[in-house]
Amino acid sequence: MTSIRRFGESKRWSDAVVHNGTAYWVEVAESPALDARGQIAEVLGQIDATLTMLGADRTRLLQVLVYLADLADAPVLNELWDAWVPADPPVRACVQAHLSAGYKVEMIITAAMPSSLG
Amino acid sequence: MTSIRRFGESKRWSDAVVHNGTAYWVEVAESPALDARGQIAEVLGQIDATLTMLGADRTRLLQVLVYLADLADAPVLNELWDAWVPADPPVRACVQAHLSAGYKVEMIITAAMPSSLG
Amino acid sequence: MTSIRRFGESKRWSDAVVHNGTAYWVEVAESPALDARGQIAEVLGQIDATLTMLGADRTRLLQVLVYLADLADAPVLNELWDAWVPADPPVRACVQAHLSAGYKVEMIITAAMPSSLG
Repeated sequence: MTSIRRFGESKRWSDAVVHNGTAYWVEVAESPALDARGQIAEVLGQIDATLTMLGADRTRLLQVLVYLADLADAPVLNELWDAWVPADPPVRACVQAHLSAGYKVEMIITAAMPSSLG
Repeated sequence: MTSIRRFGESKRWSDAVVHNGTAYWVEVAESPALDARGQIAEVLGQIDATLTMLGADRTRLLQVLVYLADLADAPVLNELWDAWVPADPPVRACVQAHLSAGYKVEMIITAAMPSSLG
Repeated sequence: MTSIRRFGESKRWSDAVVHNGTAYWVEVAESPALDARGQIAEVLGQIDATLTMLGADRTRLLQVLVYLADLADAPVLNELWDAWVPADPPVRACVQAHLSAGYKVEMIITAAMPSSLG
């Protein structure tokens, strides 16, 4: 069996899972009381923190699927994203979806790991 | 060319696809006449059946993206999910999306295969 | 570090990313003034063009996640899809999601690369 590494396991889910050199995880803002700008900034920061935990950085991002509770926040997303995304950016999709109460943004991330993480 | 294994091929889609040690598939309830609780329970059972067909089990799940037709069903999802998910759980996302008539839940699954499945 | 290949990089995103034998990308119609039928046909053609750019073809598709702005367009999607999809089809999911103004369809694609693409 090939190995699976899990990070931040709770009863319901793992914060991140790594298999075969690829990491999968989901971010929502830790502070859902923030407005859309605050939540998007926080989620981008959380992606950085997860990448650091995995021994990687923004240049290893492969794909980011963004769900906005309101597409009217897309310009704010783009402003913060453009300042954050590295010169070699991931693929990105962005659609509107109703999210749990208070949440303005949810991102599903796929990233390439350093080979040592398997 | 690296090999791709497909399971349950119809004209429109495959029920599951395996490549490079990773399996991808989608589940909706086989019984859309059921209520949300019934459909969620059925979909979790269908995931088990697909895992068995692939020679794997729940501990090999990497990521599950859940679309609920109505986020008001999230507590039922969590109740059934918590009783079903293994001690080493996958990453999970859950957002609301309008689904085909009658469907209450759709799940997109990524899982790690035993190495023999390639 | 395992290598990542990026295609069509802009400041905001890459058009496609390849890692560990798997390609990830997103397609929306280049002509959002088209109706749903026109946009769906265009997106399927764009998938072909991206596959060709990657040295692959439709038989290498693993998963296609379809977001329709209006699920009432699902019959048109199915008509065009069934005429397009190869005999060994990918996994497919389709849900409704509000998309950026004018867009009727967005597809998120995962495909297996020829081994030479790494």
